[in-house]
Amino acid sequence: MSLIMTAIAKNIKVALLQFYAGANKAENIKKATDFATKALKQHPDLDLLVLPECFNSPYAVDQFRKYSESIPDGETTKALSQFAKEHGVNVIGGSFPELGDDGNVYNTSLSFDKTGKIVAKHRKVHLFDIDIPGKMTFKESSSLHSGNKATVFDLPGLGRFGLAICYDIRFPELAMIASRSGAGIMCYPGAFNTVTGPRFWTKFGVARAIDNQAYVILCSPARNPNGGYQAYGHSMVVDPNGDVVVEAGHNEQIVYAELDPSVEKDARTAIPLSTQRRFDIYHDVSVDAKKGAL
Amino acid sequence: MSLIMTAIAKNIKVALLQFYAGANKAENIKKATDFATKALKQHPDLDLLVLPECFNSPYAVDQFRKYSESIPDGETTKALSQFAKEHGVNVIGGSFPELGDDGNVYNTSLSFDKTGKIVAKHRKVHLFDIDIPGKMTFKESSSLHSGNKATVFDLPGLGRFGLAICYDIRFPELAMIASRSGAGIMCYPGAFNTVTGPRFWTKFGVARAIDNQAYVILCSPARNPNGGYQAYGHSMVVDPNGDVVVEAGHNEQIVYAELDPSVEKDARTAIPLSTQRRFDIYHDVSVDAKKGAL
Repeated sequence: MSLIMTAIAKNIKVALLQFYAGANKAENIKKATDFATKALKQHPDLDLLVLPECFNSPYAVDQFRKYSESIPDGETTKALSQFAKEHGVNVIGGSFPELGDDGNVYNTSLSFDKTGKIVAKHRKVHLFDIDIPGKMTFKESSSLHSGNKATVFDLPGLGRFGLAICYDIRFPELAMIASRSGAGIMCYPGAFNTVTGPRFWTKFGVARAIDNQAYVILCSPARNPNGGYQAYGHSMVVDPNGDVVVEAGHNEQIVYAELDPSVEKDARTAIPLSTQRRFDIYHDVSVDAKKGAL
Repeated sequence: MSLIMTAIAKNIKVALLQFYAGANKAENIKKATDFATKALKQHPDLDLLVLPECFNSPYAVDQFRKYSESIPDGETTKALSQFAKEHGVNVIGGSFPELGDDGNVYNTSLSFDKTGKIVAKHRKVHLFDIDIPGKMTFKESSSLHSGNKATVFDLPGLGRFGLAICYDIRFPELAMIASRSGAGIMCYPGAFNTVTGPRFWTKFGVARAIDNQAYVILCSPARNPNGGYQAYGHSMVVDPNGDVVVEAGHNEQIVYAELDPSVEKDARTAIPLSTQRRFDIYHDVSVDAKKGAL
């Protein structure tokens, strides 16, 4: 029996919906379902739709609470669940501001199976607090609280996924935990900007892919010509060898890819990292991590 | 007081000596000191010389024992120590086959301060056992034994370094351990080949740099027109933002770079990853790792 784990159950046809959010929340939600509808019209056999980070709200610390809603009874959750169920398609629902039962606001990503059921909920773990003098200052922690777990979940028929949000990608442990827990695909809705994006976006997507021999999906908002925070765009899929399979530009668009379990299996068989780790020298971060799907 | 650690003590002028080894061990050692002499002639103010992996022996599993020697009384160790002392220069001595006291052979890297003293010894921890059908099969473990620690050491006046060898770079923990233990520079003598090199060499150098906001030095043998195993070459320095500072071609050559502590400090201040890690969710692999200099 092979020790090499392949964590993708079938060829997965995925669409990344790269659009931007405006000031009107209801319109943002409608735009999400419009993009989803368009993707399915172009490719009726899609298995999975992925949305960008913060797709129903402007990306601004003083706006998150205003646009936040509770889960699962908020309008955004209902719209995504309804769409998944009606169209029989799996959805990794980007992220949006969640109003928690504790009154705190979180940057939260929900995933839905094709019956519309919520199968994963990730609250962004590493908040985006940076200060590049003269170029980019942002402090999510001024209005958001952070999550307390790594997120790993199954989409029935597709395989096991790891899920994290944007700045989380800079911290290698979340993907290490997910892949060592059987995930073959790591998904990051993310909104890098025009300063950090050109320098870091692709590099981190590639890093997470090659270290874990996993597919990596990055889904960004499009750049908003009238917006404040300018997202980098460039939604992409990186394969388990670190090769970029598809990459968007920075305008609104949908990009498509097919994730192939044989690519992952071949990568993991040829260079069997998972059987060669030296946990006698360093601790395996996956064994005692706080992780879960919901 | 700032929590951001800068682990480089001064601007460090480094030369990467990219040459290939032939069948004659004494000639290989002489080539190493000839390249070192040439580098110092071109740049008398160099702080640090870095040599490639397996520089005194062909890179072949059935040759390692024949070329191996004990440390510190072998001729290769003596030659490098002598060179460092005579020229007052620090040397990260690539790697060569070591005959251990236990009779086993190791792929070992020694570092010398400018008095010629051995300040670090790393035995390759992850042996290069891969099988890419029809393209590249290699099994170091058929003739080598592996080391049992991560290596972190100081070069007086220059700063703290992490050191590992080639295939070790695919395993993120060694660099995580080193950088969290105060290293600002991660050095990997390495001999990727013409199959794995184009696909992975730069990607892994960049991954280790951005995850740890550290300089990464990769020093490869040159491609040997008459040799068996064809090294990739492309010795390089990657800065703490993941930008390649200098990159060799694949022939014999010396490339030079200057490592700037302000670049590292700015990277770590602007995006303060080291203060944002979530060790309440995942274990810090650096706290209980097996590590040491010698």
